[in-house]
Amino acid sequence: MKNAKVKLSELLSFLGDEVMRVYGETSGAYIDNLADVAHVNETTLDWVKPKNPDRQQILENSKANVVLVDEGVLPVAGKVLIVVKNPKRALAKVGNAFFVERPQPGIHPTAIIDAQAEVGEDVYIGPFSVIGKASIGAGCVIDSNVRIYDGVILGKGCDIKAGAVLGGAGFGFEKDEDGNRFRFPQVGRLIIGDDVEVGANTCIDRGALSDTVIGDHTKINNLCHIAHNNKIGSNVVITGCVNVSGSNVIDDNVWIAPNASIRGFIHLGEGCTVGMGAVATKDIPAGETWVGNPAKKMEKK
Amino acid sequence: MKNAKVKLSELLSFLGDEVMRVYGETSGAYIDNLADVAHVNETTLDWVKPKNPDRQQILENSKANVVLVDEGVLPVAGKVLIVVKNPKRALAKVGNAFFVERPQPGIHPTAIIDAQAEVGEDVYIGPFSVIGKASIGAGCVIDSNVRIYDGVILGKGCDIKAGAVLGGAGFGFEKDEDGNRFRFPQVGRLIIGDDVEVGANTCIDRGALSDTVIGDHTKINNLCHIAHNNKIGSNVVITGCVNVSGSNVIDDNVWIAPNASIRGFIHLGEGCTVGMGAVATKDIPAGETWVGNPAKKMEKK
Amino acid sequence: MKNAKVKLSELLSFLGDEVMRVYGETSGAYIDNLADVAHVNETTLDWVKPKNPDRQQILENSKANVVLVDEGVLPVAGKVLIVVKNPKRALAKVGNAFFVERPQPGIHPTAIIDAQAEVGEDVYIGPFSVIGKASIGAGCVIDSNVRIYDGVILGKGCDIKAGAVLGGAGFGFEKDEDGNRFRFPQVGRLIIGDDVEVGANTCIDRGALSDTVIGDHTKINNLCHIAHNNKIGSNVVITGCVNVSGSNVIDDNVWIAPNASIRGFIHLGEGCTVGMGAVATKDIPAGETWVGNPAKKMEKK
Repeated sequence: MKNAKVKLSELLSFLGDEVMRVYGETSGAYIDNLADVAHVNETTLDWVKPKNPDRQQILENSKANVVLVDEGVLPVAGKVLIVVKNPKRALAKVGNAFFVERPQPGIHPTAIIDAQAEVGEDVYIGPFSVIGKASIGAGCVIDSNVRIYDGVILGKGCDIKAGAVLGGAGFGFEKDEDGNRFRFPQVGRLIIGDDVEVGANTCIDRGALSDTVIGDHTKINNLCHIAHNNKIGSNVVITGCVNVSGSNVIDDNVWIAPNASIRGFIHLGEGCTVGMGAVATKDIPAGETWVGNPAKKMEKK
Repeated sequence: MKNAKVKLSELLSFLGDEVMRVYGETSGAYIDNLADVAHVNETTLDWVKPKNPDRQQILENSKANVVLVDEGVLPVAGKVLIVVKNPKRALAKVGNAFFVERPQPGIHPTAIIDAQAEVGEDVYIGPFSVIGKASIGAGCVIDSNVRIYDGVILGKGCDIKAGAVLGGAGFGFEKDEDGNRFRFPQVGRLIIGDDVEVGANTCIDRGALSDTVIGDHTKINNLCHIAHNNKIGSNVVITGCVNVSGSNVIDDNVWIAPNASIRGFIHLGEGCTVGMGAVATKDIPAGETWVGNPAKKMEKK
Repeated sequence: MKNAKVKLSELLSFLGDEVMRVYGETSGAYIDNLADVAHVNETTLDWVKPKNPDRQQILENSKANVVLVDEGVLPVAGKVLIVVKNPKRALAKVGNAFFVERPQPGIHPTAIIDAQAEVGEDVYIGPFSVIGKASIGAGCVIDSNVRIYDGVILGKGCDIKAGAVLGGAGFGFEKDEDGNRFRFPQVGRLIIGDDVEVGANTCIDRGALSDTVIGDHTKINNLCHIAHNNKIGSNVVITGCVNVSGSNVIDDNVWIAPNASIRGFIHLGEGCTVGMGAVATKDIPAGETWVGNPAKKMEKK
């Protein structure tokens, strides 16, 4: 956590329209940390879950002087209450702005970038990363030891964590006359939208004859394998250790829980959920939750 | 995809004996790309699946001027048809020869290679790879950020993708007098045959007291873990995110589907298949397909 | 395996109090290798499993001149028998001391270490590793291409294999006013105890508002993902390809078999076992073994 002392005035100015009302004596108040419930102190920016029936009690028990709350709580003597629409969202914004350290834009001198690569404005590329003939959108943060092969197009503001491998040749083979496999040409691209996150050591292969595509705002956790030719929509969440085999169509807002397997050549409908460790072998309709091995529709209990 | 314009004469010369017959007007014809069915254009090298009853129709609908076909199709006005034994195989060979960019042999100046390592002819070793006292066969392509520990023997023509870790100490422990684990010595080697592929960020451990062995033409996808002492045959396919625990015997032509787990100390018989997400806890007889958790023989439907 | 020729006198001196008795003619005896049963030769240090009813027979059949045995075996003409409490443990200690090559302490000139990092005595840091504002305990071995982010505290004598990523931002998100996810601040630390092993390409995230904690002597294999806020005890074994989602409490001596998934926000009781490929969605009581998808208590057979 970055060291910072944030005066209440600065905080309120940062939150702007998010703030609906402020209770308490604001002069001299400040925060200098975020903490979980067990470690809150006087200068933590605390928050109370909205609509919690016990929230007035929780608020009074908080050691913090400054607390983000939703509407309907009563003032508490000695505390500054900042009434906002969504306390957790407000906390997250404050945290990102004041307590999270972000790398400054710049390309580390050890990074190796192909002369034909296109790198946008305000990009950070960390040590020992190797970038081929790729296009890197403005504001991307690419950590260390990342490999981006030829033919990758990264949108704006993507976050690529250490050790990720983007655009490698997919795992497709033909057999030669002796019955030994040789690689089918993998000449497609990998096209990633804006504001996409790729976790550490995650691998996403480029397409074979078509492209692998990943939509805006999609978030992919560590150690996932996403094979060639997948067409993945926007705001999809792919959690840790997921295997997505080739040529699936995955619609917007799908949620894939950890260590799930997606078969290949199937369709995951808009907003569906694939459960933890589920083995999805068939199309999943929009909005449904499928679990188990093989995955089946989860029955309501 | 590499830019290339390939004249028909050049194409026919490259394919050689593969070509059984050519229909159509070859003079002036050329190709300059490969594409999936949705993106085929006049200068794509297209192909039609053999024995497809609708293939004459598909062929006539293709936008491409040059198409690889099998025997039994009729000439189509305005198109060059190249009749071959196996159209997809022919396409793959053409693609690899003309449209896939391969790194030129050479060792990147940032790669660190032990003075006692043996490196064959025409090897490529990429940036930031670290090679111990290992033997690297002729024609291997080792991408960036790869770690090859002491005692690894790589055959000829292997393809090791970015971030792979070969020959690390296996996960075997004894307990000391206080009950704390310490590593059992892992002094075996990792012996990999010819024409083996190891995917990005895949880890293969060396043996403990014996060797880990992987046969010729075996293909391993991204993010697999292969533990110590495994004896893996030839032409085995290990797909993404597979975990192979220690000391198994895996015969030739086994297929292990994504995210499967192999228990350790079991035998996978020649040509058997382990299904996606299957948890293989027992020997699997040759030729059988086992699926589920725990894995059981798949019944025919 | 490191070349070494170890005289019997040296061996006995090294083993010290571990040795209860020695049978046979020790003068001139030596060992120069370790091997599995199929490759034992005259100068291998061999061992016989304790309490095996056939061990006298096995011992007589061994080609080795020097064998570690437990009490109760009879002398064998022409062999030196070293009677110890625990033959395998004694073998492991000898192997580590004489046949396993360990890197010399030192920091490779290509490693990049933040000026504010604290690095203890006798630490090895390999090529192309990148260390932020972290604390590295004495005697740690950090291999190549490792990424350690800010806020990581590593205890003494830890072993971090190639490609591991420690202290990355966890996978926690809020939604903005447009419904797009943005990262919830991940400002906690990652605190790792003494004598912990982290496998190749394994990723362990730092905490969000609290810390991620891993206890002494815990061993984690390759390609595991351990998410934010986990509190993991001592002597825990986490095998290959395991996914541990966020905010679990995992007590001492838990064993998690390969490719298992731990849901997040659950409690794994002291000494319990999670089976291979198991999908643990509920608390598991101390000492129990749970298997399957979803995981259930394994019934005794």
